[in-house]
Amino acid sequence: MKVPESLISDFRKETVFLLATHVGPDGDAIGSCLALAEALKSLGKTVFVYDKDPIPKFYRFMPGHRTFRTTIRKMLSKSPIVVLLDCNSPERAALDGYTFRKTVVIDHHETESDFGEIRWIERSAAATGLMVFHLIRAMGIPLTKTMATNLYTAITVDTGTFRYSNTDPDVLRAGAELVDAGAKPGTISEHLYERWEKNRFELLTRTLGTLEIKDGIAIAHVTKGMLKNTGTTESDTENFANFPRIIDSVKISVLIREVDNGRWKVSMRSKGTVNVATIAAAYGGGGHRNAAGFRMRADLEMIKKTILKSGRAVLSRS
Amino acid sequence: MKVPESLISDFRKETVFLLATHVGPDGDAIGSCLALAEALKSLGKTVFVYDKDPIPKFYRFMPGHRTFRTTIRKMLSKSPIVVLLDCNSPERAALDGYTFRKTVVIDHHETESDFGEIRWIERSAAATGLMVFHLIRAMGIPLTKTMATNLYTAITVDTGTFRYSNTDPDVLRAGAELVDAGAKPGTISEHLYERWEKNRFELLTRTLGTLEIKDGIAIAHVTKGMLKNTGTTESDTENFANFPRIIDSVKISVLIREVDNGRWKVSMRSKGTVNVATIAAAYGGGGHRNAAGFRMRADLEMIKKTILKSGRAVLSRS
Repeated sequence: MKVPESLISDFRKETVFLLATHVGPDGDAIGSCLALAEALKSLGKTVFVYDKDPIPKFYRFMPGHRTFRTTIRKMLSKSPIVVLLDCNSPERAALDGYTFRKTVVIDHHETESDFGEIRWIERSAAATGLMVFHLIRAMGIPLTKTMATNLYTAITVDTGTFRYSNTDPDVLRAGAELVDAGAKPGTISEHLYERWEKNRFELLTRTLGTLEIKDGIAIAHVTKGMLKNTGTTESDTENFANFPRIIDSVKISVLIREVDNGRWKVSMRSKGTVNVATIAAAYGGGGHRNAAGFRMRADLEMIKKTILKSGRAVLSRS
Repeated sequence: MKVPESLISDFRKETVFLLATHVGPDGDAIGSCLALAEALKSLGKTVFVYDKDPIPKFYRFMPGHRTFRTTIRKMLSKSPIVVLLDCNSPERAALDGYTFRKTVVIDHHETESDFGEIRWIERSAAATGLMVFHLIRAMGIPLTKTMATNLYTAITVDTGTFRYSNTDPDVLRAGAELVDAGAKPGTISEHLYERWEKNRFELLTRTLGTLEIKDGIAIAHVTKGMLKNTGTTESDTENFANFPRIIDSVKISVLIREVDNGRWKVSMRSKGTVNVATIAAAYGGGGHRNAAGFRMRADLEMIKKTILKSGRAVLSRS
């Protein structure tokens, strides 16, 4: 992976940075921002990190997560260079409507906007955290234990801890170097996969109880009522969409979550070459080949029918 | 990791090998045997591989799995050097009662016997597959794609695909080299984690329905009746003991399986420094700190009480 020279020289020259990432931040978004922020601060820069949404509870083990701000005006008044990480449009980062002195995009997502004066997009990179790892090294900044923890979490989340097909020698070697630098794989995995509250486990059991499988497409749903009855919140459903993938015959796994009356959020996961990003794009959403989503206003049965139809079409082409 | 010189020089001299591993073979046992067998065959040796039990269905994607033999007499008549992999006593490999010309042990388990003229034990190795990886390299044998697939599967199974605390830079770098040599992480993970039959998923749901959590100890059970009603077999329960670990408050997760009337097999998984190998040892079983088991003849409620008592004692010391 080649880090653009223009990026490195600009980062050396600039003094005030605003690092921003997508709404509903995941481990890759959070870890990429925090590690880059720490690296830039070690060079004496002033660095702000922004996400419109709060950091989900189960990511609050990540060092520095408290530095995230959810409001933007005060930071923009310092005239920073704005760096979008793990997304590539101001809309995804809830930054639309503002003007910026200078903009940079560092991302690995498939769908692209044309935002950013410097655009570093690596579609084949397993995670934005892997790009930040190479950037920090290219800038000659020593990896600290906290940077390593944030970057290891980032690459871990986006590769399913080295289980997805985006796991390549580069991301495994980066993993090894991050462990050398102090990241603790067992502890990070415990935080990511073994810190569920009992009620989240109860919600999972109930969600799996709604599972229907047809023609290789598994569909489960979570209603507001299910959240209420188990004392959980929407962020507790993170990763639920992946569970039905365990079944051999399931090629696409879909989780439908009720946002509020009549509005639903659809998360899709697929296996191998089955591309669900095309379904998401057709309904105004986005994502990667194997993980994508969109929102829809309709009743639950109608959404299920729509997904089954689109899913069948994608499977017939795969 | 230093491969003993005596092992390398003996392996070069010998011409007929019997590679054997423990009963109820897992991915590390199978992959270690198959990769070493292929490496030795590439040097012109005659190699037999033995396990008393058949290879479980979900490991039958591993290249060469059909070369395993479940009977031993004919192979022993060729006077091979006998190599125990991923275990260290003839009993564990169902080889007790025979006499051997020469014996070698290659293992990473904690409990040890004194069997074996050459004993290479690396307790800190994440997997026996990692030891075989270093052995093959030390012998200067080029890694083929099939060896890489078997070894990647081996290290994957014993590290929970790089999730357990035994994940160190060595095993991640070996992973990278194995991917370089042709192992496909996404495909291997799909085979290991996403090839369940629907009825296995149904058995899991029912098993989780039996879950009781007390004082940080989660206990679930599988009866012969549950297997019968879902059309599954005992090997379908592999990995079930790990699921309740997802809950934060669970420090020890236990799965109790009915072998036949009044006889039960107990599998324990623990988090962090909680040592369940000591419980297993106390009841005549074995294993590692975080994964161990034993057998017991008693009624189910009595076994649960016994486990709760032993578990509480271990937790109070951790």
